[in-house]
Amino acid sequence: MTADLASLLPALRNAATRLRIDSLESTSAAGSGHPTTCFSAADLVAALFFAEMRFDPKEPQHPGSDRFVLSKGHAAPLLYAAWAETGAFPREELLKLREIDSDLEGHPTPRLPFVDVATGSLGQGICAAIGSALNARRIRSDYRTYCLLGDGESAEGSVWEAAQVAAMDKLDNLCGITDVNALGQSRPTMWQHDMDQFARRWAAFGWHTIVVDGHDMDAILDAYAEARRTSGRPTMILARTLKGKGVSWVEGKEGWHGKVFKKGEELDRARADLQKQLVPEASGVNLQAGIKKPSARPADVPASGPLAPPSYKIGEHIATREAYGDALARLGQADPRVVALDADVKNSTFSDRFEKVAPERFYQNFIAEQVMIGSAMGLAARGAIPFPSTFACFLSRAADFIRMAAISNVNVKMAGSHAGVSIGEDGPSQMALEDLAMCRAQPNIAVLYPCDAVSADRLVALAASHRGPVYIRTSRPKTPVIYPNDETFTVGGLKVLRESSQDAVLVVAAGVTVFEALDAYAQLKVDGTLIRVVDLYSVSPVDREGLLSAARSAGGHVITVEDHYAAGGIGDAVSEAVEHEGVRVHRIAVREIPRSGKPEELLDRFGISAKHIVAAVRAVAAGKPVGAAR
Amino acid sequence: MTADLASLLPALRNAATRLRIDSLESTSAAGSGHPTTCFSAADLVAALFFAEMRFDPKEPQHPGSDRFVLSKGHAAPLLYAAWAETGAFPREELLKLREIDSDLEGHPTPRLPFVDVATGSLGQGICAAIGSALNARRIRSDYRTYCLLGDGESAEGSVWEAAQVAAMDKLDNLCGITDVNALGQSRPTMWQHDMDQFARRWAAFGWHTIVVDGHDMDAILDAYAEARRTSGRPTMILARTLKGKGVSWVEGKEGWHGKVFKKGEELDRARADLQKQLVPEASGVNLQAGIKKPSARPADVPASGPLAPPSYKIGEHIATREAYGDALARLGQADPRVVALDADVKNSTFSDRFEKVAPERFYQNFIAEQVMIGSAMGLAARGAIPFPSTFACFLSRAADFIRMAAISNVNVKMAGSHAGVSIGEDGPSQMALEDLAMCRAQPNIAVLYPCDAVSADRLVALAASHRGPVYIRTSRPKTPVIYPNDETFTVGGLKVLRESSQDAVLVVAAGVTVFEALDAYAQLKVDGTLIRVVDLYSVSPVDREGLLSAARSAGGHVITVEDHYAAGGIGDAVSEAVEHEGVRVHRIAVREIPRSGKPEELLDRFGISAKHIVAAVRAVAAGKPVGAAR
Repeated sequence: MTADLASLLPALRNAATRLRIDSLESTSAAGSGHPTTCFSAADLVAALFFAEMRFDPKEPQHPGSDRFVLSKGHAAPLLYAAWAETGAFPREELLKLREIDSDLEGHPTPRLPFVDVATGSLGQGICAAIGSALNARRIRSDYRTYCLLGDGESAEGSVWEAAQVAAMDKLDNLCGITDVNALGQSRPTMWQHDMDQFARRWAAFGWHTIVVDGHDMDAILDAYAEARRTSGRPTMILARTLKGKGVSWVEGKEGWHGKVFKKGEELDRARADLQKQLVPEASGVNLQAGIKKPSARPADVPASGPLAPPSYKIGEHIATREAYGDALARLGQADPRVVALDADVKNSTFSDRFEKVAPERFYQNFIAEQVMIGSAMGLAARGAIPFPSTFACFLSRAADFIRMAAISNVNVKMAGSHAGVSIGEDGPSQMALEDLAMCRAQPNIAVLYPCDAVSADRLVALAASHRGPVYIRTSRPKTPVIYPNDETFTVGGLKVLRESSQDAVLVVAAGVTVFEALDAYAQLKVDGTLIRVVDLYSVSPVDREGLLSAARSAGGHVITVEDHYAAGGIGDAVSEAVEHEGVRVHRIAVREIPRSGKPEELLDRFGISAKHIVAAVRAVAAGKPVGAAR
Repeated sequence: MTADLASLLPALRNAATRLRIDSLESTSAAGSGHPTTCFSAADLVAALFFAEMRFDPKEPQHPGSDRFVLSKGHAAPLLYAAWAETGAFPREELLKLREIDSDLEGHPTPRLPFVDVATGSLGQGICAAIGSALNARRIRSDYRTYCLLGDGESAEGSVWEAAQVAAMDKLDNLCGITDVNALGQSRPTMWQHDMDQFARRWAAFGWHTIVVDGHDMDAILDAYAEARRTSGRPTMILARTLKGKGVSWVEGKEGWHGKVFKKGEELDRARADLQKQLVPEASGVNLQAGIKKPSARPADVPASGPLAPPSYKIGEHIATREAYGDALARLGQADPRVVALDADVKNSTFSDRFEKVAPERFYQNFIAEQVMIGSAMGLAARGAIPFPSTFACFLSRAADFIRMAAISNVNVKMAGSHAGVSIGEDGPSQMALEDLAMCRAQPNIAVLYPCDAVSADRLVALAASHRGPVYIRTSRPKTPVIYPNDETFTVGGLKVLRESSQDAVLVVAAGVTVFEALDAYAQLKVDGTLIRVVDLYSVSPVDREGLLSAARSAGGHVITVEDHYAAGGIGDAVSEAVEHEGVRVHRIAVREIPRSGKPEELLDRFGISAKHIVAAVRAVAAGKPVGAAR
């Protein structure tokens, strides 16, 4: 330890005590929260903010700034106290914790300028931190990323996905800190204070590990310095702490998780306990002024122009997943912000096309979807435009990450291939039939679903330029190109593919069912029944006016047909858009657990082929109930 | 090795070769599948089935039988070949692999009598195997559970959740086998043949580890015996293998994942390569006859009678989550098949009430939701009735497991607490607003949503007696008891709470919004507007006739109100049930990412409080558009 640092110690200890006092006061004012969880980590955070991290409190998003991710999001009051202590905002604000009009929420969200991704679902912050660390490489910055985890949190599998990816990628610009306070929510943690249990796991996963007393300011500073000096692998600092540290009668005691100190005597006693720990400081020490400056501001990345149109031929057969891969590769060449992430299915999703042209921005996660989406969140929060892709069904492995990506409103572009029963023989475990429901449920995820290569290409370009999370659903089978290369698409748009002045019914399809609808159109036309056919390539948001107009021109009857379960997908989306205008919607969808078989057999067996559309149209035209839809 | 076993070696080697030939033939006949993945594990499986496991090929579900879970589900043809080799079904069936009317699907599902849970989403089988091992303890059987994993699969975080839970629970009746063939789908795996990478991870997680050559039959048998002798901890056998083993020009080669041998010369060459490996056997060896018999059939567990009604008082305030916990505890006392699983939130979900009365059937997973649901699947498959519970939002961590639970149609009863914005100050990361969409999407999950303590109690009892997966959604706030203790509820039912002959609108609510609807009723009644109010406690399936009848008696106008996002929840469920009968449905739901605040403030801010229902009813009654629903 340098003499400079040594002279800081009393001030750092006092800062930690102030963070505890602020966490105490703010949670008591709010009447809820997790003060004792803040107390255990206060020394670690004080040391990090005032003697280790390089940042500018007035510009938390400085692109050369070290990052801090609070993976144990329930310690939010500590995070807020630390930023107030840096001078980023007035300390009085802390007392508005958890109020409806304060951005100091119960768990951190990016409504706050110093929060990159929302945390509070445990085991996610460490994944986002990997994305942040990868981004430093992308922009050739030496900023470092720090991530504070809880010990209870370490039980989440996603933490070990993160552990293996960070070690594989040799992320020595990443430093994890585990606050081992030994107490979970409902009981002592699995390993309590057996520090070796933690150390041997992280070491086995390839990390440099340092075990410290998390209340020994000297040791903490040394650990940060050692982590900074460690090259070729990430470091995990395992800090033995006491939950409730600083308030004598609470330290290390069960029954205090998520419990605040009651205003009045209880709060007063705790405050007094903490205040008496404030010690005399060296004169001239000013922690705020001593905060290390951010690293150099990386050169601005040139903005990409719009992606040039593709060069497909009408009628040629190409799977949308393949067109996705080709578009992604061209996008990668055009825009250095674009990165791609895989979970060992790049040759099925065709993201390997991107890897070929931009291997340095292609991140392999192996079969670990949670860290793939989590690190994409971190990358997006630092300015990259990440496209993580896998089989659509396996995106559900990261459903909770997708939920948090929506809360974070990060610029992640997820792509799921092999949607629906049309994948065929691999069977139900490989079929995504609930992915539209999963992504549509989030109010801010744009859900795009191309049916042909041109729309796939254009929707990839659109996803990249759209602000916020996007989900692109692609299919396994080859489908004919139906759109000219210069066709334009919009988030919230649709295409009317067939129309006449005598349409009996509007059929709304997307993806592979567009071709079933076109086939049904041709069959029905033979005996004089005309239908309007819409390609609903934007499933969320939907073009409500466009749907209403098309439905009204087709007798107010709509049939939706989708390679997806009946609940939460296209039928529901269309229904909500039009129904209270008196339009009737009849949903054709997969209504039972499917099985293996040939794609065309399965479309037929599970009720979503042209034959079923024809039957439904005839039933509607005859004023009968639609059997297929029940 | 005993002399008996040694004499079996040539026959076991031949069996392994036959399994390879059958896997080759069946995948070539199907035209798709993963033969080379079967080849790498064939020796491991042959040894397991014909020299280690105790089971009855004619009664695969014998309750004293050892279990085999194929976690690497894409090796399904090998599993099928092994069971055909035992005599469970005719070998000719294998050539129907992946055909639409064969149960020999691309990945295993419990349509087959020897499959406990569907696999094919990697990293799940090992979690189910833990449930199977826990069940052996529950029924006091010494049956053992074996689980075959892939090396690529080991990247899934769920595998490490399983690792820590199995070690913590000292499951020495569990034996994992990792087929380390070094090749993933798209490239070599992260650790390839570096066996120490695997061994040190499993050892760090507390398992006994054995590294073997996975093509050395002697060594494999020794490893199984060593695992059987190991007490106090589970064993992981790490088997170094070659993908494609047995077909000389494919062994260990990239580019053969998920690729079949083309009929004709390619298939013929491969078959010949394998056939020449068949060796002379000792006379008198009959592998089928030598299969070890299952352990004793455990005593039948007495079936429980119906759970006695609770004893709540109308008007008393109790949270549904608390009533859930109380019901679960009473159920646990009444029925020894009932078990409960937690992820360190037992004091919030109130599953700790169960732990108090039946600690030996309460399984703590700490903060690891995937293994919680996965092991519940394994427990259910072996006859237990598991109730895993956590915050509803964190069930989304296990969304892919829930998807596979639906495909498996297992008897798992999931409970999610803290639904919706009504949780208040903790903020969006802790609010489940997409859980109904997640569970409703699956065609066979019953979704139940109590509003008061009595309905919570009765729905827990109903869930236990219902066959198949169930999701119960509970809420954080205390709500008044509105039902008498002897009220009856059904899966697919609803309750009409307010009705008259002059109802202007039907309001459909559930959970906390029932009380908003009742409040709206009271407010509207003052100025003479009457509404019908329905408690839709069964969200899936819904009582279509009941809804239609109520809607028709209320002018054909329905307003749904839910503490959930607009897509995929109650509005969509009601809409699909009634709309094509010309009923108009207006959805009131949460339509943006919420934030921290007091529960009542949030209900109001996010548009689902009584005030908004009143406004919507007035708009509908006046023939105007419902502003709140847009």
